[in-house]
Amino acid sequence: MSHAATPDYAAVLAQIHAEIEPSLGQGRVADYIPALARVPPRQFGMALCLLDGREYCVGDALVPFSVQSIAKVWAVALALRGAGEELWQRVGREPSGNAFNSLVQLETENGIPRNPLINAGALVTLDVLMDHVPDPVEAILGFVRGTARGVTVEVDEEVAASELAHSDRNYAVAHFMKGFGNIRHELAPLMRAYVRQCAIRMHCLDLCRSFLFLANHGVVPASGLRVLSHRQTKRLSALMFTCGFYDESGDFAFRVGLPGKSGVGGGVAAVLPGQFAIAVWSPALGRFGNSLAGIEALDRFTTRTGLSVF
Amino acid sequence: MSHAATPDYAAVLAQIHAEIEPSLGQGRVADYIPALARVPPRQFGMALCLLDGREYCVGDALVPFSVQSIAKVWAVALALRGAGEELWQRVGREPSGNAFNSLVQLETENGIPRNPLINAGALVTLDVLMDHVPDPVEAILGFVRGTARGVTVEVDEEVAASELAHSDRNYAVAHFMKGFGNIRHELAPLMRAYVRQCAIRMHCLDLCRSFLFLANHGVVPASGLRVLSHRQTKRLSALMFTCGFYDESGDFAFRVGLPGKSGVGGGVAAVLPGQFAIAVWSPALGRFGNSLAGIEALDRFTTRTGLSVF
Amino acid sequence: MSHAATPDYAAVLAQIHAEIEPSLGQGRVADYIPALARVPPRQFGMALCLLDGREYCVGDALVPFSVQSIAKVWAVALALRGAGEELWQRVGREPSGNAFNSLVQLETENGIPRNPLINAGALVTLDVLMDHVPDPVEAILGFVRGTARGVTVEVDEEVAASELAHSDRNYAVAHFMKGFGNIRHELAPLMRAYVRQCAIRMHCLDLCRSFLFLANHGVVPASGLRVLSHRQTKRLSALMFTCGFYDESGDFAFRVGLPGKSGVGGGVAAVLPGQFAIAVWSPALGRFGNSLAGIEALDRFTTRTGLSVF
Amino acid sequence: MSHAATPDYAAVLAQIHAEIEPSLGQGRVADYIPALARVPPRQFGMALCLLDGREYCVGDALVPFSVQSIAKVWAVALALRGAGEELWQRVGREPSGNAFNSLVQLETENGIPRNPLINAGALVTLDVLMDHVPDPVEAILGFVRGTARGVTVEVDEEVAASELAHSDRNYAVAHFMKGFGNIRHELAPLMRAYVRQCAIRMHCLDLCRSFLFLANHGVVPASGLRVLSHRQTKRLSALMFTCGFYDESGDFAFRVGLPGKSGVGGGVAAVLPGQFAIAVWSPALGRFGNSLAGIEALDRFTTRTGLSVF
Repeated sequence: MSHAATPDYAAVLAQIHAEIEPSLGQGRVADYIPALARVPPRQFGMALCLLDGREYCVGDALVPFSVQSIAKVWAVALALRGAGEELWQRVGREPSGNAFNSLVQLETENGIPRNPLINAGALVTLDVLMDHVPDPVEAILGFVRGTARGVTVEVDEEVAASELAHSDRNYAVAHFMKGFGNIRHELAPLMRAYVRQCAIRMHCLDLCRSFLFLANHGVVPASGLRVLSHRQTKRLSALMFTCGFYDESGDFAFRVGLPGKSGVGGGVAAVLPGQFAIAVWSPALGRFGNSLAGIEALDRFTTRTGLSVF
Repeated sequence: MSHAATPDYAAVLAQIHAEIEPSLGQGRVADYIPALARVPPRQFGMALCLLDGREYCVGDALVPFSVQSIAKVWAVALALRGAGEELWQRVGREPSGNAFNSLVQLETENGIPRNPLINAGALVTLDVLMDHVPDPVEAILGFVRGTARGVTVEVDEEVAASELAHSDRNYAVAHFMKGFGNIRHELAPLMRAYVRQCAIRMHCLDLCRSFLFLANHGVVPASGLRVLSHRQTKRLSALMFTCGFYDESGDFAFRVGLPGKSGVGGGVAAVLPGQFAIAVWSPALGRFGNSLAGIEALDRFTTRTGLSVF
Repeated sequence: MSHAATPDYAAVLAQIHAEIEPSLGQGRVADYIPALARVPPRQFGMALCLLDGREYCVGDALVPFSVQSIAKVWAVALALRGAGEELWQRVGREPSGNAFNSLVQLETENGIPRNPLINAGALVTLDVLMDHVPDPVEAILGFVRGTARGVTVEVDEEVAASELAHSDRNYAVAHFMKGFGNIRHELAPLMRAYVRQCAIRMHCLDLCRSFLFLANHGVVPASGLRVLSHRQTKRLSALMFTCGFYDESGDFAFRVGLPGKSGVGGGVAAVLPGQFAIAVWSPALGRFGNSLAGIEALDRFTTRTGLSVF
Repeated sequence: MSHAATPDYAAVLAQIHAEIEPSLGQGRVADYIPALARVPPRQFGMALCLLDGREYCVGDALVPFSVQSIAKVWAVALALRGAGEELWQRVGREPSGNAFNSLVQLETENGIPRNPLINAGALVTLDVLMDHVPDPVEAILGFVRGTARGVTVEVDEEVAASELAHSDRNYAVAHFMKGFGNIRHELAPLMRAYVRQCAIRMHCLDLCRSFLFLANHGVVPASGLRVLSHRQTKRLSALMFTCGFYDESGDFAFRVGLPGKSGVGGGVAAVLPGQFAIAVWSPALGRFGNSLAGIEALDRFTTRTGLSVF
């Protein structure tokens, strides 16, 4: 933030794209469901949206992909709007220090997930949200379409169905928390909402736009709509910063220094409060389930521009 | 950061002090060693140092106290200067998601501590530092005296001796890592250095000054001395943000939104990059070992001023 | 086994009953389902069946109760008959060293339960058994009725329904293992079979008779029917010895020195190979979920008579 | 125990030796210290001692080897003689369900080791024994020489020194328990006693003789000396049965069905109460640290003769 000159963002993005191009395809595309496994791995897109309205894109920034866990951020935002501070009775806000689908901590911590950005916490978040809206996925879609202006934001029902057919681990987590009384709705509609939320499909630019309110202290810049208070936005950003990248969250903070969230579809979205939102997509993942090229691109972006929260 | 007017910092500190005064003494003073257990619990001090040189104090800001784990930050800074990126071969940078003295993760992760701000990681950091300086505690003291201008920064040898007499847990951790080959020096001098580092004694204002280089992208403002590169400073700040408060790190980030570090002596130091360093001290601790009033004061400070990294 | 004179078993049982009478009701009746919670806690029955056909009873030995986890032993016996050694591809034979419903080890051991006498292992055992018999609970009932001659052995459908309504934890375990591919049937019929197996209702004397084949190296003494080979019987006895009492298995072995199995209904059944089967029932449980008076009675029995496997 | 004819033990041992011969050397000799790593792996010896005085040997039954963890059994016997039931205030009697040197359970169970046959429990046992005898290793040696009549039973000081130089993990465990107050003597003499106890060197026949009192309800048959009461012997046998083979204890019980104890030197000793003691030695170990050929030989012995506690 101390760098004097405004970067030439178009040039920075182009340069990063060129540098990363040769290594695209390293890592592994998520293969736990067939609909994700067949995505060609060498795709790469990046979008940057400034608060002043400027937008920059490179590569496959307009190719839709499955946002997967990135949707957890919108769900938390809506649950905070609906339930306010009561959400924190049902879910914590600490990094988990464990693989993203671990049941160990749930067992020692009485069914209260560590934070809303791991699967267990996202299920509780949806369970809370279902008390406040008739259909949580429609609510999320409406919100995203409003913030992103993206007409093509939609649920990929094939991906959703495929995830539902491979949801034993999530069912285990949900039953486990239900045994502690921390899931209150029926599991079938809850799980259906969960897999549909994960299966939301959109491109980098729309994803980037949809995160811009987080860079603007809770207000959607284009519409002036306040989604969250300044304080709630700070808190959600802190959650993304400490918990947004599974068991690689510390490393992402260390390398990139921005609050953000990844999904196993290969997307990453992040913000610099007061300045911009940025989204990258490249489907090949590293060992912790985050986009290899996506994190590398953001590392280069914040290192080159000197722009991070620190 | 979006707030238009500059806050009247003197008034803000005075107001927070007045608000917190009635609840001072709640919680428990660290009692694992006698020298800490007899500190009167109702003390409270706060200091703020801006990059432009202004300094503000309230309460017991000039009463010296034991910094304890806050010293880990200086040790990491010096180890980074000495060993550079090699440090990360020996210690990770992920939140631990466990009590601060846990051996569980060390066992599953082959003796590599999760991060340098937990005890295990601090021991490895010192072990690395001992390769680069003849006496690591003298190096830390010299560094702190230089950045803090504090003539009274010193090791409380009584506290150090008391800690050494209660260091079975840390010896266990050190032997455990030595069994994995991740401690290389003899344990006796290592442990002596560790307890002396923890027993450094100084007041809030000096502590605050000693953190100011972290708010200034690695350069000590008063002297112009570069301690760390911009990138190293970003990384150390990220570590503090995700790992600085034991198993309450996520909550501190959530409430306060600043990178910082606490110690069981009741001190907390934090920075806002580009703007200020801030330090609070109040000896009564909450259940995770962090100063209750210290965190409350910082929560109020960032909430009231709207100044946080988000 | 070295004691010269044959004990006067009737006198021994009567004496133990008298000694234990004053402390009956200490502990807690299982209260996780209403149908079990209302069982009067001060009941106590004990039955002893020798291989030579003699039978001894005291107290409430003819009052039916819910066998709960004791049924796991019959299920393993039938699964061994059906699947033979292949059973051990799906479930281990090590003590779990953890609470009986823990998911932790399942996670680190890829969905293979530690042994067939914990809930996870019993679900796998049923899943295996379902490949070999059309209705596993009917198979178990038929087997028990045959060995026990008990006309009143039946499923308490109210208890079964109540357990099914409180089976989130077991559903979590089952889904979790299904995610690893170690459950192959549909969960609904599997869970229905599981709760009905647990809800088998019979009295001490019948329970005792039903274990007699385990004391007779695999052959039902009354009918001459071979259920298991000598070697299979040894192995099943070893499993009961090391794993039959949840996280109190070592203590039971230590105090009593017989292979056996407990249930949260308050029943305990055990055998001395070559000599006898013994069953006790008293519904009030200790902290590990085993009948307090049941274990105390067996401790007194083996200590007084000097009869144990050691 | 139900088999009518007395086996021809000499023939049984010879046959087992012949059957096992081709597979000798599979597995890995313990290599964590050089003095053990250079033992030729294809050695195999077996000794059987009946209560009536008959003794049988095959193979390398008179070649001395390092008993390692087998010594834990003698230490428990002596600690029980010295401290009686108080020993159980300091150490548990449950299987650990974890690798033999795990610190995890110590942490959750406040420094009380699960049982005296894992390293942590053996250290506590020695710590207790040091309250009752001036030199615990001399006491153990005296006891073993008395029961075994073995003039060559001695400490291999080279092995002891080598173990001491590789004892960081055990120091970690000891410090950890000392932090909980469950180690009371100085660590240096405790650890010296521990490594010397492990380094006791003797051959199979002497080892077998030294276990014979456990088969005889606590009395050394040759001398008539009572070491433990019948009840204490039962309890120690139960401990060996549930905890004697690290995380392979259940499997040993399952396959062999005798109480016993192994050591990483490749030795295994076991007893059938009322009948015999048996010892095998072959240095190549399986993945859980137990002699591969030793367990295989005992499996064949109990399967062929039908002699086990079940």
